[in-house]
Amino acid sequence: MAMSIVARRLSTGSTTWRHGNWLRSFSTAFREERDTFGPISVPADKLWGAQTQRSLQNFDIGGDRERMPEPIIRAFGILKKCTAMVNMKYGLDPSIGKAIMQAAQEVAEGKLSDHFPLVVWQTGSGTQSNMNANEVIANRASEILGHKRGEKFVHPNDHVNRSQSSNDTFPTVMHIAAAMEINSRLIPKLKTLHSTLHSKSVEFKDIVKIGRTHTQDATPLTLGQEFSGYTTQVKYGIDRVMCTLPHIYQLAQGGTAVGTGLNTKKGFDVKIASTVAEETNLPFVTAENKFEALAAHDAFVETSGALNTVATSLMKIANDIRLLGSGPRCGLGELILPENEPGSSIMPGKVNPTQCEALTMVCAQVMGNHVAITVGGSNGHFELNVFKPMIASGLLHSVRLLGDASASFEKNCVRGIQANRERISKLLHESLMLVTSLNPKIGYDNAAAVAKLAHKEGSTLKEAALKLGMLTGEEFDTLVVPEKMIGPSD
Amino acid sequence: MAMSIVARRLSTGSTTWRHGNWLRSFSTAFREERDTFGPISVPADKLWGAQTQRSLQNFDIGGDRERMPEPIIRAFGILKKCTAMVNMKYGLDPSIGKAIMQAAQEVAEGKLSDHFPLVVWQTGSGTQSNMNANEVIANRASEILGHKRGEKFVHPNDHVNRSQSSNDTFPTVMHIAAAMEINSRLIPKLKTLHSTLHSKSVEFKDIVKIGRTHTQDATPLTLGQEFSGYTTQVKYGIDRVMCTLPHIYQLAQGGTAVGTGLNTKKGFDVKIASTVAEETNLPFVTAENKFEALAAHDAFVETSGALNTVATSLMKIANDIRLLGSGPRCGLGELILPENEPGSSIMPGKVNPTQCEALTMVCAQVMGNHVAITVGGSNGHFELNVFKPMIASGLLHSVRLLGDASASFEKNCVRGIQANRERISKLLHESLMLVTSLNPKIGYDNAAAVAKLAHKEGSTLKEAALKLGMLTGEEFDTLVVPEKMIGPSD
Amino acid sequence: MAMSIVARRLSTGSTTWRHGNWLRSFSTAFREERDTFGPISVPADKLWGAQTQRSLQNFDIGGDRERMPEPIIRAFGILKKCTAMVNMKYGLDPSIGKAIMQAAQEVAEGKLSDHFPLVVWQTGSGTQSNMNANEVIANRASEILGHKRGEKFVHPNDHVNRSQSSNDTFPTVMHIAAAMEINSRLIPKLKTLHSTLHSKSVEFKDIVKIGRTHTQDATPLTLGQEFSGYTTQVKYGIDRVMCTLPHIYQLAQGGTAVGTGLNTKKGFDVKIASTVAEETNLPFVTAENKFEALAAHDAFVETSGALNTVATSLMKIANDIRLLGSGPRCGLGELILPENEPGSSIMPGKVNPTQCEALTMVCAQVMGNHVAITVGGSNGHFELNVFKPMIASGLLHSVRLLGDASASFEKNCVRGIQANRERISKLLHESLMLVTSLNPKIGYDNAAAVAKLAHKEGSTLKEAALKLGMLTGEEFDTLVVPEKMIGPSD
Amino acid sequence: MAMSIVARRLSTGSTTWRHGNWLRSFSTAFREERDTFGPISVPADKLWGAQTQRSLQNFDIGGDRERMPEPIIRAFGILKKCTAMVNMKYGLDPSIGKAIMQAAQEVAEGKLSDHFPLVVWQTGSGTQSNMNANEVIANRASEILGHKRGEKFVHPNDHVNRSQSSNDTFPTVMHIAAAMEINSRLIPKLKTLHSTLHSKSVEFKDIVKIGRTHTQDATPLTLGQEFSGYTTQVKYGIDRVMCTLPHIYQLAQGGTAVGTGLNTKKGFDVKIASTVAEETNLPFVTAENKFEALAAHDAFVETSGALNTVATSLMKIANDIRLLGSGPRCGLGELILPENEPGSSIMPGKVNPTQCEALTMVCAQVMGNHVAITVGGSNGHFELNVFKPMIASGLLHSVRLLGDASASFEKNCVRGIQANRERISKLLHESLMLVTSLNPKIGYDNAAAVAKLAHKEGSTLKEAALKLGMLTGEEFDTLVVPEKMIGPSD
Repeated sequence: MAMSIVARRLSTGSTTWRHGNWLRSFSTAFREERDTFGPISVPADKLWGAQTQRSLQNFDIGGDRERMPEPIIRAFGILKKCTAMVNMKYGLDPSIGKAIMQAAQEVAEGKLSDHFPLVVWQTGSGTQSNMNANEVIANRASEILGHKRGEKFVHPNDHVNRSQSSNDTFPTVMHIAAAMEINSRLIPKLKTLHSTLHSKSVEFKDIVKIGRTHTQDATPLTLGQEFSGYTTQVKYGIDRVMCTLPHIYQLAQGGTAVGTGLNTKKGFDVKIASTVAEETNLPFVTAENKFEALAAHDAFVETSGALNTVATSLMKIANDIRLLGSGPRCGLGELILPENEPGSSIMPGKVNPTQCEALTMVCAQVMGNHVAITVGGSNGHFELNVFKPMIASGLLHSVRLLGDASASFEKNCVRGIQANRERISKLLHESLMLVTSLNPKIGYDNAAAVAKLAHKEGSTLKEAALKLGMLTGEEFDTLVVPEKMIGPSD
Repeated sequence: MAMSIVARRLSTGSTTWRHGNWLRSFSTAFREERDTFGPISVPADKLWGAQTQRSLQNFDIGGDRERMPEPIIRAFGILKKCTAMVNMKYGLDPSIGKAIMQAAQEVAEGKLSDHFPLVVWQTGSGTQSNMNANEVIANRASEILGHKRGEKFVHPNDHVNRSQSSNDTFPTVMHIAAAMEINSRLIPKLKTLHSTLHSKSVEFKDIVKIGRTHTQDATPLTLGQEFSGYTTQVKYGIDRVMCTLPHIYQLAQGGTAVGTGLNTKKGFDVKIASTVAEETNLPFVTAENKFEALAAHDAFVETSGALNTVATSLMKIANDIRLLGSGPRCGLGELILPENEPGSSIMPGKVNPTQCEALTMVCAQVMGNHVAITVGGSNGHFELNVFKPMIASGLLHSVRLLGDASASFEKNCVRGIQANRERISKLLHESLMLVTSLNPKIGYDNAAAVAKLAHKEGSTLKEAALKLGMLTGEEFDTLVVPEKMIGPSD
Repeated sequence: MAMSIVARRLSTGSTTWRHGNWLRSFSTAFREERDTFGPISVPADKLWGAQTQRSLQNFDIGGDRERMPEPIIRAFGILKKCTAMVNMKYGLDPSIGKAIMQAAQEVAEGKLSDHFPLVVWQTGSGTQSNMNANEVIANRASEILGHKRGEKFVHPNDHVNRSQSSNDTFPTVMHIAAAMEINSRLIPKLKTLHSTLHSKSVEFKDIVKIGRTHTQDATPLTLGQEFSGYTTQVKYGIDRVMCTLPHIYQLAQGGTAVGTGLNTKKGFDVKIASTVAEETNLPFVTAENKFEALAAHDAFVETSGALNTVATSLMKIANDIRLLGSGPRCGLGELILPENEPGSSIMPGKVNPTQCEALTMVCAQVMGNHVAITVGGSNGHFELNVFKPMIASGLLHSVRLLGDASASFEKNCVRGIQANRERISKLLHESLMLVTSLNPKIGYDNAAAVAKLAHKEGSTLKEAALKLGMLTGEEFDTLVVPEKMIGPSD
Repeated sequence: MAMSIVARRLSTGSTTWRHGNWLRSFSTAFREERDTFGPISVPADKLWGAQTQRSLQNFDIGGDRERMPEPIIRAFGILKKCTAMVNMKYGLDPSIGKAIMQAAQEVAEGKLSDHFPLVVWQTGSGTQSNMNANEVIANRASEILGHKRGEKFVHPNDHVNRSQSSNDTFPTVMHIAAAMEINSRLIPKLKTLHSTLHSKSVEFKDIVKIGRTHTQDATPLTLGQEFSGYTTQVKYGIDRVMCTLPHIYQLAQGGTAVGTGLNTKKGFDVKIASTVAEETNLPFVTAENKFEALAAHDAFVETSGALNTVATSLMKIANDIRLLGSGPRCGLGELILPENEPGSSIMPGKVNPTQCEALTMVCAQVMGNHVAITVGGSNGHFELNVFKPMIASGLLHSVRLLGDASASFEKNCVRGIQANRERISKLLHESLMLVTSLNPKIGYDNAAAVAKLAHKEGSTLKEAALKLGMLTGEEFDTLVVPEKMIGPSD
């Protein structure tokens, strides 16, 4: 994307004359594009037009890595293909319509992503990215039909943007992008994580270990039971995200400028939604109320809330795993985590739980993005919320990070976790709370005396019990069986 | 609650002797209660016991208004009544069981709330509030059976807390309290707000007004359409909250200390859930996985996320209403809001949109509580999350505030909103964007010339059109009809 | 405060006739108060007037525990005393002025707090609480001068509120309350915590222990060094809060309705600030720019940011302490935390780190309040931010909780922490990373071989070194001295 | 950065054999690098080594735009140059030292940024980015000295990382990068914004306009006064950020693994800090307490809090400006904002306040990043906080966005704002609250009657006053002078 920086610098505040001189020594040529503000120089090898170029110059914020997320660009490709298809039914010239569809398909496949230089921090309606899509597709479609860039044989507004407004296209691509990313990237990765956690839960089902509450020793459970808690958290997390999708599947398209659908024909909205649904294999429908769909992004706040809950779950799981894997000598040491990279050249056995660290950092960022999305979502005015690009970018960021980090965590950590059975057993049998099992036999007070003595002298419960003459070694061994403490009794 | 402060001060670090002297001049007497730490003085007129008293002294944080929320206390009453009922089936002495049920019923009805002095900022498992409930119910049940407070004829642990652990009772009462408050307080009030917004939407369905995007004049819509957006937001908000309830209906009871159900009998968990369901008329079930139910509060993070979305919606609606009602002379002035209190003694017609202000403040607090709950929810360790009281308190706070503020907003603001038809009409007809309708007749360029002239000269579109000789007054009046711009065409 | 509920219910929508009947059977009588909306019934035993009563009825949100925080009420007492004093210099009748001062002093001392029933969730300018103060002080001052309540011999607006507007009084009391609470409640408690942590750092200065990074065993440090980190965090936290006070010391008083100072005399603002400074012994000054002081609450957002940083620090410290104190047998077990209440009747030695739990819950709430304050602070419009009561309440809540929880944590936890020297020493000497010290003698590769063998066989480093014949036992003991690894070398 | 993706895909899970085959058809060759895990293929044209390559494969999270921020990479260049310089004083071979310095300088200048492919979401200590810097500098320095990449003539650990640990280098580069970005990017841009706002405040000092509180008409002020509030907010914002720099200027370098400084010589830390200070012209000092400096990032949470306050201020300012500029016919219309791009092809005069929108979106993101940083900052364990890359990235993101957006807002919006004097005057004189000026002459009740009549009839105050016969037209004009209502009286 170095080109976009050059483009930005070149055009900013420069006169044609200055360009003329300067450009001779520069390998890239420029062409002129026009909009209602007049002519403007655009890099000759780029498909974008005047309005994209103005945005590039007026919003020099954050640099290249702040560009509108790729899934939004691709969703514009999908949408513009579908609108062309539907517009042909309403009278759009078929040759132009087909060229638009072909160009839009290229956008949908990411082939023209270099022609989308604009950043998130632009107009809050995403108008400039909508125009970027219109301009790129119009120029590309013109070329397909044998015309030159900038000639507007295929017109960005009249043809590509026909029956549309940025105010309905941008929320529509937000929803398309979010739905596709969640379905294709996040959910499958969470499912894999869930499945691996479940396998571990089964693998560890017979390993009885000490439980911990308040970080303190408590009654036992199996390591499998402990992992079943994590498994359930991830399973519910998947449910939570899925539960929010019905609102994401509602498309604003057809609302045009303020939600009324001015400049569309009746039925246009429904046709667009079904065309997008067919194109994406996702159950999109037209939004029940277009005024809500333009003026608010509650659906994104809701979905972000589900992601926030998933982040909460994963933070807990990753924290537990790194603490249970702490050591190798001076920590809890119950889990052996896979070694993926040198920890230290000196300390063999030192495993830094780096996957847990990457995941928990991601969780913190998702929580932060959620607040950003909430603030943006709550600050709409009248017929249009103008925090759209930020809200879209934040949600897609969270989806991508959660998906990727879950996959990395699953592959590079969870899958390879081993139980340190020896250590687990040692801790279990040293624990004082097993004394609970003696209550029925020797009574609460005597059991407490045993435990107190063991604690005071640092001995085992058995030693203490024998020393106090409470019962024989055999009796003790019969009564104190952690394996019987891991469920309700019959 | 001045008593609890006295109680706290009295007992702190004081010996019996000091009390003895001091108490003679004080109207309240003290009695001695005991736990494994020994004896401790407790106000004689209070039903709580030793462990409550210790918490009162050890957690002097925040003062009386930080007491555990009332719905938690009442839910303890419900739960302890249900556990007694089920425990009787498993062998609890029926006379004791019935006395517990009677005492617990009094707690459930709020009759003993003065005996619950503990604050939210205590042990993170809520153990001390569980013991507070156990102690109060035990003492009260003892009295019912003709015994004295402190004698433990009915024992707080052995009888009232039988087959339970704080680790499963506290999450259970969290869920009971949240479900009851949401169903009885929040949802009905949101439904009333929804219904009133919907009525307004119908009432205003024929009032055509200027639309606004980017805070700038745009194409028209009806005031009814604008309100239909708000209506939809609230409707979806109700759906969002309801959608999270299935996880709230899962009860942890039966998991005891670490989720294994140690010290319970098989089936205990299911019986408790169905008893609570019957008692509350809400569809509670036993939690599918007790390890998750103790170690995480993802269900609360999820529900809080739904409340956060509702807050986002209400913030938007209230902002719109106060801006549309701004004026009376120098604002937008499209809505007339009810006057509920003197704005200023000088400026008649000045309506401060105070209900909008109260509501938006509530929304901000709900967003903040959501972050607190998220932080708490993500910081659990091993078998127990120990941010329980904060999470419970935060959620109940958000539920209460959103419910009450929605009701107040509905009753004292929305219900009485009137459209300022004259003002709306004036703004609509002054607007330059109606020129859009001329495009088909005189072409885009001419239409633009009309609009530009009107803007430059501050005239109406009609005046400009006539001055430019574009069309006759009659033609203008036939073409420029905002009422035809509020939907898709046939 | 049960009275305010009765008052609310009584007056709501009721006619005098209905009251008449109903009141005969009720112990409390009512009197009539008036404002420009007409007459309204007010409980006879309360000093508040008509506008307070209307707010009580119109803002039934959250219940009694949502009342305007006490420090705000008391600050109103201070401010109204000072304004009366200054107003006398500008011509206020001295007898009335003195009566106001006396009544205001009673408010400042909390003697009349029962007469302030309004909740935070009211008008966003705090007008109704300002009027509550004006009405209570006017009625009380009237009584002092021998007149009846409701007669307005001393007038709430003309006398008590003279030269003032809610728009400048409320931000002024926000600043007075915050400054007083921070100075009297928060800072001293943080200083005590700092001092105790520092003492522990000194007490533990010679205890060499294993360090942990990534939760994994690392090179050693002293327990004193570890605590010195905590000490520094708290010390910087105090600095951070103090650094924000200069903006809090700026008072809005004198800005009146929109910041211009209309209806005041030149110099009024400066005199008020110096009078408040004298009254409170805090360095208040008049705000440099009154427009900023009314329209924004950046100073509160800033201070809340400092509290958020303190919460971050305390969360870390409390987490460390509970993890280092985990056990008694199956955790890290390096610290012995004081036992303040029965952990479990079965497990002696089980200490639940309840103070850490209360503190970390408080920290989470402070982080949440910070978001609420940020949202409120960013949503002001034009000349007035109308999230004032929420912002004030949130900050005072955070200040109170952090102060109280720090004090509780210091007193009931930190002060009594003991090092488990035996355990610390055992872990230290089992650790494999001490092998680092062998590098200079036997080379990196041989040292690594020693460590790897020890790890594999679960033996000590010394055993492994001897087994490999790398060096003698004496040589080992000379080289491996953790005490020499705790600082840079000469 | 397409290369890094190729590199990632190539090496992932592939055997040498597979590479061998595959690579023949690929233009890029690979070389072998080694670490303690053995050999690994690295793209031949890249300077990074084995550990970087492993991280690339193990942390496939987020894609290229998640790479470690450029300022961190450059700060590594600065730091490694300085450590080489100081290490030469402590015995590092001068020829190697000088080669390191030269290579590090290239990193500092951004010349080698393509060789830093790692993402933020890696190990939480930033170890892998530290090793990336060590490897790149070692290979580049080796080349400078005539040796090949991968030969380790200059060794990444022994030479480049000498006397350092990731645990102290990473927090050091965090602080260097933050201090440089804040000083060079944020503060100058905020100062320009402040200066332009101040100019506007002066330019508009004589324009009297209606004030608005609660969004409702209030008493007048000048437009200059209104802008002086914004000016003050930005001025204080600059102060707030600057006030947090002293903690940012503290460098962790010299603490090594856990804060003790093991493997450094006394004085090393101080020398490093002064060398970095000289290199950057910024007043860096060695951290007072290295344990705090590694284990916590309170300094970043604090600075982020200041940025959050700046975001709060800018959100308010941008909101006001877009609302005051709303229209052109149906809004407040007091400000005329510069037109930077076509609003709509139909509505001349429609200016979308796009710069306000970009800025407010940035503010929301900064608030979100602040929460992420707070969550990360509060979750450290023991001797090391392992949310370092996320915290660093979040803060640098906020700094960059706030700086760039402030500059864009200043240049493309504030600088060109014009007052719509006619509209402002019209609104001012229509306002009813000017009636306040009549109070002294005709009394409050009569003045109120005038205002009420004007409100009821929609007339001017003057018309109402004359109709009621209260005073003559001349008297009215003498008394009602808004220009006298904009400050305290003498």
